[in-house]
Amino acid sequence: MALRLPAAVRPLRPLALAKPSAQQVRWLASPVPPVTQNSSRGPTAMVFLNMGGPSTVDEVGDFLSRLFADGDLIPLGRLQGYLGPLISKRRTPKIQKQYAAIGGGSPIRKWSEYQCAEMCKILDKISPETAPHKPYVAFRYANPLTEDTYRRMLADGFGNGRGGRAVAFTQYPQYSCSTTGSSLNELWKWRQRLEGKARPLQDGADGTIKWSVIDRWPVHPGLVEAFAQNIEAKLAEYPEERRDKVVLLFSAHSLPMTVVNRGDPYPTEVAATVQAVMQRLKFVNPYRLCWQSQVGPQPWLGPQTSSTVENYIAQGQKDLLLIPIAFTSDHIETLFELDEEVIGGSSHADTVKRVESLNGSPVFINALADLAKSHLASGIACSTQMGLRCPGCKSERCAASKKFFAGQQL
Amino acid sequence: MALRLPAAVRPLRPLALAKPSAQQVRWLASPVPPVTQNSSRGPTAMVFLNMGGPSTVDEVGDFLSRLFADGDLIPLGRLQGYLGPLISKRRTPKIQKQYAAIGGGSPIRKWSEYQCAEMCKILDKISPETAPHKPYVAFRYANPLTEDTYRRMLADGFGNGRGGRAVAFTQYPQYSCSTTGSSLNELWKWRQRLEGKARPLQDGADGTIKWSVIDRWPVHPGLVEAFAQNIEAKLAEYPEERRDKVVLLFSAHSLPMTVVNRGDPYPTEVAATVQAVMQRLKFVNPYRLCWQSQVGPQPWLGPQTSSTVENYIAQGQKDLLLIPIAFTSDHIETLFELDEEVIGGSSHADTVKRVESLNGSPVFINALADLAKSHLASGIACSTQMGLRCPGCKSERCAASKKFFAGQQL
Repeated sequence: MALRLPAAVRPLRPLALAKPSAQQVRWLASPVPPVTQNSSRGPTAMVFLNMGGPSTVDEVGDFLSRLFADGDLIPLGRLQGYLGPLISKRRTPKIQKQYAAIGGGSPIRKWSEYQCAEMCKILDKISPETAPHKPYVAFRYANPLTEDTYRRMLADGFGNGRGGRAVAFTQYPQYSCSTTGSSLNELWKWRQRLEGKARPLQDGADGTIKWSVIDRWPVHPGLVEAFAQNIEAKLAEYPEERRDKVVLLFSAHSLPMTVVNRGDPYPTEVAATVQAVMQRLKFVNPYRLCWQSQVGPQPWLGPQTSSTVENYIAQGQKDLLLIPIAFTSDHIETLFELDEEVIGGSSHADTVKRVESLNGSPVFINALADLAKSHLASGIACSTQMGLRCPGCKSERCAASKKFFAGQQL
Repeated sequence: MALRLPAAVRPLRPLALAKPSAQQVRWLASPVPPVTQNSSRGPTAMVFLNMGGPSTVDEVGDFLSRLFADGDLIPLGRLQGYLGPLISKRRTPKIQKQYAAIGGGSPIRKWSEYQCAEMCKILDKISPETAPHKPYVAFRYANPLTEDTYRRMLADGFGNGRGGRAVAFTQYPQYSCSTTGSSLNELWKWRQRLEGKARPLQDGADGTIKWSVIDRWPVHPGLVEAFAQNIEAKLAEYPEERRDKVVLLFSAHSLPMTVVNRGDPYPTEVAATVQAVMQRLKFVNPYRLCWQSQVGPQPWLGPQTSSTVENYIAQGQKDLLLIPIAFTSDHIETLFELDEEVIGGSSHADTVKRVESLNGSPVFINALADLAKSHLASGIACSTQMGLRCPGCKSERCAASKKFFAGQQL
C-alpha cells in the first residue's frame, strides 16, 4: 500500500539505517547556508517541539526535575516549587532503571533530529521559495532545551535585528495544553528574554524572528497512512484466520481529569486520529481507545491501557495489538511501559503485540514535509483553534503566549 | 449549500409543516401492505431506537421510574431497585415543571415517527428490493415502549413462524452502552420473551424475525452535512464582522466517569462527529466539545456545557453557538436545559445562541435513508465494533445481547 509521493521526492533510506549521519550532525551545528534561489524567502528555521527524554541515564535527574517543575504538565499549584523537586528526586532511581532497561537512554533525540533533517531536505525540493530549510529541535525537558536552541538560532543568523522566518512545528499530532501548549509557552518565554528588546530595522520591522506555528495535525492523510501501514505490517504477523479478529488498542498518554475538565482539546483530537486511522483500515478489526501512563492518586482519563489489556485477556480476548497513537517516535512509554510492563507482564507476549512507532517511516517524514509546505504557503500564523483558550483556563502565561503567536504578522 | 439528493427523491416538506400527517398516523397503525415487487425481499420493518420522552406531563413519573431503573444508563448496582424509585419519585415534580415549560411534553415521539415514516417512503423508492419498508419506533423509557412495538410487529405479520426482516436503527449517531446498548439489551430481552420459543418452519428456519442493527453512524456525510447546514444558518444571524469569531460549542450528553473508564466508545465517536463537522466547515471558527446534563454527586466527563458558557463569558467571549451533537431531535436537554437554563441564565441571550436540532431536516432524513439502504444491501448483522464488549464490562446481559445480534444469519 504505497502512498503517492511528490515526484521530486526520492525514497528515503530504510528504517534500519536511520541513524543521523555525520553530515546531518554537521548540518545541525553549521551556520545557515547562503541563499541560492533569487526568489527565495528563506532561510527558514524549522523547529521541532517535543518533550524530549534523557539520552543517558545520568540525565534522568535533570529531566525529571524539569518535568515536575512544569505547571502546564503537572499542575501542583503553589506547591509546585516544593513538591516538584521532592517527587522528581524520589522517582529518579526508579526511572533510571527504566531507561537502563531500554538501552541506557531515550531514542527521542536521535529520531527527532533525523526526522527534522530529512524533512528539511524534502522541503528544499518541494518548497524552494522558502529554502534553505534549517532543522532545529527544541525539547521541553531534555537537551537540546528550548533556551539553547533559541540561542543557537540567534548565533546561526536568525533574529537579532536580522529578522528571519521560523516555524515552530509541534511533534505532538494532537494539541494539549500540557504538551504543545507547554512547549509554546516555553518558546515564548525565551523569545521574550532573548529578543524582547529588539533593535528596529530601517524598514520599520523590529528584526526579531518571525514565528509561525504548526500547532496540530491529528488527521493529516500522511500521518494516518503511516500509522495504518505500521498497523497492517504488525497485523500480518498474526495467523490469517485470526487476523481480522485482533482487537486494536489505540493507546495515548492520559491526562488528569482536572485538565480534561478545564476543556483541553487533546481527547477530542486523539479520537479524531483514531477515527481517521480506522476509516483508512476500513473498520475491519474491532478497536478501543485507551489511555496510558497515569501517575499519582488523582483521577485521570480512562480506560487505562494496562487494565484494558488485563480485562480483555480475562474475557478470553488474547489477540491484542497496541498502537501508540499520540507520539511519533519511540520513548520510555512505548519501549518500557508498553513493551516491558504491559506486554511483558501479560503472560501473553506471543499474542499481545505493539505496532512500531513512526520513527524513520518515510511515509511519515513525507507527511511532515507536506504539512510544512502547506503551512509555509498559507501565510497563517497558527490555527484559529489555537487562539481559543480553554474555557477553564486561568493561566495568564497561556493567554499571553497565544496572543503573541496568533498576532505574528508574516 | 445543497446536498445532492438521489434523483428519485423529491424535496420533503419544509420544517415548519413537519407534523406527522393523518396518512402517516394511519400508516403507523395499518398492517403491512402486500408485496408488489416480484424481486422484493420485503416487507422490512425499520425500527427506530431511542430513549424517548414523556409526550405529556402526566407521563413524566413513569418515564423517570423506567429511566432510573435502567442499570445500563444509571448504574446503581444492587441498590437499583431501592434507589431508582426513590430518586425518580423525588425528581418527578421538578421535571414535570420542565416539561410544562417546553409546552407540556417532549416532541421526540412526533419527530421520531415523522423521521421514520419519511425515511421509509424514500427507501421504498431507492431500495425497491427490500420494499415495502414499514416504520416503527421503539422507545426505552416512554411510549411506544419496546415491548409494545415488538407486539405490534408480531400483530402486523412479522415473526411468529412467518419470519421477516427487521432493522434496529439506533437514533443515537454515536454508540454508548448507556443509550444504544441499553435499547438493544431491551429489544433482545423482549425478543427472547416474545419469540424465544419459536416454531420451526418447513425450510428449517425458525420463523422468528431476522434482526440486523445499524448501531452507529457518527460521521455519515449526510449527518455531517445536516449539522453543518444548521450551523451555517445560525451563524448567519451574527453580524458578518463577528461571524468567524463565534466560538462553536458542541454539546453532547455527558457520561459518568465510571462508564467512560469502563471503555465506553461514546466519547471517541462524539469527537469523531465534531471533527467531521469542523472539517466540513473548513475550521473557520474556533470550537470546543463540552458535555451536558450531569446528575448527582459522582464525577462525570467534562468540561460541562454550562460552566463552559459561563467561563467564556467571563473571559470576554460572548458570541457562543451551542450545537447539540449527539441527539437528532429536540428534547428536554435542548429545549429546557440549553435554551432556558444555559442561554436563558447567561444574561447574554442575544449573543449566546443554539443551533436548530435536526428534527425535520430533509438532508438528515435523506441521510437516514442512505444509511438504511447501504445497511440493507450489505447483508451484515451489525458492525464489527458492536461485537466487542467494553474492556471493563461485567454485564452478562450485554454479552448475551451482543452475541445474539452479531450472530444473526441474514
